[in-house]
Amino acid sequence: MENVIHVVVWNEFRHEKTHPAVRKLYPKGMHTVLADYLRSLPGVEAATATLDEPEHGLTEAVLDAADVLIWWGHAAHDEVQDAIVQRVQNRVLEGMGLIVLHSAHFSKIFQALLGTHCSLKWREIAEKERLWNVEPSHPITEGIGEYIELPNAEMYGERFDIPTPDQVIFLSWFEGGEVFRSGCTWQRGHGRIFYFRPGHETYPIFYNEHILKVIGNAARWAAGQRVRIPSACPNVKPLEAISPKEIDFGDIEV
Amino acid sequence: MENVIHVVVWNEFRHEKTHPAVRKLYPKGMHTVLADYLRSLPGVEAATATLDEPEHGLTEAVLDAADVLIWWGHAAHDEVQDAIVQRVQNRVLEGMGLIVLHSAHFSKIFQALLGTHCSLKWREIAEKERLWNVEPSHPITEGIGEYIELPNAEMYGERFDIPTPDQVIFLSWFEGGEVFRSGCTWQRGHGRIFYFRPGHETYPIFYNEHILKVIGNAARWAAGQRVRIPSACPNVKPLEAISPKEIDFGDIEV
Amino acid sequence: MENVIHVVVWNEFRHEKTHPAVRKLYPKGMHTVLADYLRSLPGVEAATATLDEPEHGLTEAVLDAADVLIWWGHAAHDEVQDAIVQRVQNRVLEGMGLIVLHSAHFSKIFQALLGTHCSLKWREIAEKERLWNVEPSHPITEGIGEYIELPNAEMYGERFDIPTPDQVIFLSWFEGGEVFRSGCTWQRGHGRIFYFRPGHETYPIFYNEHILKVIGNAARWAAGQRVRIPSACPNVKPLEAISPKEIDFGDIEV
Amino acid sequence: MENVIHVVVWNEFRHEKTHPAVRKLYPKGMHTVLADYLRSLPGVEAATATLDEPEHGLTEAVLDAADVLIWWGHAAHDEVQDAIVQRVQNRVLEGMGLIVLHSAHFSKIFQALLGTHCSLKWREIAEKERLWNVEPSHPITEGIGEYIELPNAEMYGERFDIPTPDQVIFLSWFEGGEVFRSGCTWQRGHGRIFYFRPGHETYPIFYNEHILKVIGNAARWAAGQRVRIPSACPNVKPLEAISPKEIDFGDIEV
Repeated sequence: MENVIHVVVWNEFRHEKTHPAVRKLYPKGMHTVLADYLRSLPGVEAATATLDEPEHGLTEAVLDAADVLIWWGHAAHDEVQDAIVQRVQNRVLEGMGLIVLHSAHFSKIFQALLGTHCSLKWREIAEKERLWNVEPSHPITEGIGEYIELPNAEMYGERFDIPTPDQVIFLSWFEGGEVFRSGCTWQRGHGRIFYFRPGHETYPIFYNEHILKVIGNAARWAAGQRVRIPSACPNVKPLEAISPKEIDFGDIEV
Repeated sequence: MENVIHVVVWNEFRHEKTHPAVRKLYPKGMHTVLADYLRSLPGVEAATATLDEPEHGLTEAVLDAADVLIWWGHAAHDEVQDAIVQRVQNRVLEGMGLIVLHSAHFSKIFQALLGTHCSLKWREIAEKERLWNVEPSHPITEGIGEYIELPNAEMYGERFDIPTPDQVIFLSWFEGGEVFRSGCTWQRGHGRIFYFRPGHETYPIFYNEHILKVIGNAARWAAGQRVRIPSACPNVKPLEAISPKEIDFGDIEV
Repeated sequence: MENVIHVVVWNEFRHEKTHPAVRKLYPKGMHTVLADYLRSLPGVEAATATLDEPEHGLTEAVLDAADVLIWWGHAAHDEVQDAIVQRVQNRVLEGMGLIVLHSAHFSKIFQALLGTHCSLKWREIAEKERLWNVEPSHPITEGIGEYIELPNAEMYGERFDIPTPDQVIFLSWFEGGEVFRSGCTWQRGHGRIFYFRPGHETYPIFYNEHILKVIGNAARWAAGQRVRIPSACPNVKPLEAISPKEIDFGDIEV
Repeated sequence: MENVIHVVVWNEFRHEKTHPAVRKLYPKGMHTVLADYLRSLPGVEAATATLDEPEHGLTEAVLDAADVLIWWGHAAHDEVQDAIVQRVQNRVLEGMGLIVLHSAHFSKIFQALLGTHCSLKWREIAEKERLWNVEPSHPITEGIGEYIELPNAEMYGERFDIPTPDQVIFLSWFEGGEVFRSGCTWQRGHGRIFYFRPGHETYPIFYNEHILKVIGNAARWAAGQRVRIPSACPNVKPLEAISPKEIDFGDIEV
């Protein structure tokens, strides 16, 4: 098996075109900043895909080649076609990793894989956030200290309507008084999923070296064993010898 | 709060009409046998609903009044309307319990709540099954001994493509050589879910007193706290005083 | 089965004798305040036990009759005899519930049941704590709103060295900048365990009606099914007919 | 960080001296067979340690250098000194991996880390076992097919008295009618633990290529991030400015 992992960074890529403040921060889109960072890591290749490309840039061929998909969306979740969501979901269940960023908590793909609304409380007043590293021995937090501090963040508060995570990696403290499970992992089928809270488009979150490091670590972790195991529901023969059976109806008269 | 729990037993109710052997066993449908049993329990009321009723018998009013929904389906999963599936899913996430029986592992509602294919191996040669009680202190196994033995069962074998359950209550041994996680619990949103493997339509499974007892226990368990908490994603004010913020762009020139 | 649950409140009961401020707050000991509250609830009986009683008040007879044990300790964890710890652990594994309060995170019984150090960060400057209710449909949070606010608390901060809880019920926000998993559940053997963070002896925490309500709810929850299943490791006969076997050594020459 | 992982294989090493049949199979001890296999893997170094060595061969220096410890014991669990058990436990909580084989389910170290009795049913009639691979995308099952079949095994049956595993990797079917969670993972502190059921001393289990592959895979997995994080309970200063506090006694008169 080759050792290079292939990551696709998917971005809604709308705010960067319509909001001057966002364009100023991310003139080529957040996906470009993330892909450039990932390409700087040894053993990682990165491509990008965006909502307004044909098939949202997520053709069968693109997903076939991907070990990990990173997803950022916010205002246009509804414009993502159901058939593409189903395609991505199938690919995750087969073994592709998925990293879901910030406002993509409300993306169709995240909701489809978790089965819940993924709702939360929110507030946007550029307050301080401190992400506590609860699992310092997890691959995702390699090289991360006790916490990551962000001077400005959109607040997300509990209750976050998600299934109990396999592991909670980061817990956030917010200046305004809330807390949040900001880094969570789940396995679904053979795919590893990581939700990572930071990433509001009007702050320079994706230039923060610690945030980038977490995303890079998460990409390696989510690639997992790089299996590809399609779903199947086979009718199988017995492994042990079984004598022919009559149905035992007990006391039931039939 | 009144103490009576309201259970709705939903059945596809097709095999009983089209397959003479099934009709013989369950002339009024499997749902009727289950509902009759549930009504025999103190503090339990039971109603039924079937696929061919308007809205599959699952109107808003029916779901509003339900504490627990029991689901059996097999050949007509695709005929269940997506809008009704969404309605049931929302109601589970708000707090209604859901008990999923046997071949309903492939029902839309189970797949929607779990996010996986829920596929498995299978074989139908009336072989013996022994369900080992792995959690003898769980409410669902109250009054159940070390195991339940079924003389004839359709076999379901691992890998069962489900998210890791909160608890595995029963593990099955099959005469032909397979094993299966036959009783599994999950919480999704505020709803409790129990998958219970037995229930093949051509065997008198739903007349077995131990199987019935498990289903009755599960109904009480799944009713939970009988909360009703709708999903919401509110914009909230800070609880702590926060001074006005400027965005800190660090080294990023914007 | 009778419906009354029997709770034993265990307290180290030293600070109340040696620290005037604590004695002022809890002249008869924290255990007395908690037991009085529990006795005020329908269907709950409460007794107390303290470190300096013979066998720490935890005789076989006391534990036999207990459905739930509540534990508060701080300065004298080491004085609890190992034999009594083992006795309590066995009783929990058989099915007795255990509620561990505040500084009892470092008690022998909690460490023995969880297998980890249960260490954490701490600070005592009477700062504000807000306990967010993350599982509003759990029996433990019945009647509790979005959060509980304590004007003065000793701070406990992550990383809390515990096994991943079955469920995190409360997450705390602290004025000084930390977060903590303040309400956690685990099952060990047949016993249900709840760790609840509040309870510092120099603040009137155990007079707070919300804190008391949580403890009362937790007592009912931890009583569980009130089973009593001793540990056993039986040599059992096969359930299926097996023909006599020769050992298959494969290619190994022996 | 060097990439070689250091594994120590610990064996009680008594049966091989006292039971002719076991000596014939494992003349140099089971630990030697396992260590030889591990040394044959790229990037793995292996040493051995046994009960009758000073400090059971588990000096501070040996544990310091170990990334993973493999443990086999059966008849002499009680002879393992408590101080050494505590030393190993501390090292696991700091980050060393631990692989517990077969009858070591009753070892002091396994019980100390899990907090439960780890009891089970058993029978020794050389019956057939089939270990179903429930997590084919987990690192531990790399290269393993749908199941591993052992022609002769001691039977272990449920209920296995363990905390709910993080993941169940293998589920066993036994010819005599039982099932068992035969491959289970837990994290405790920063250490990864894998329990693997096969390994009865009178059968050539540790010559089976599939069993060896699982143990080799598990050693790599358990090495994890090779962190070393000692336990600490620091008194920390606030990260946020806090004004001096008076205790709020509410309605309590003190």
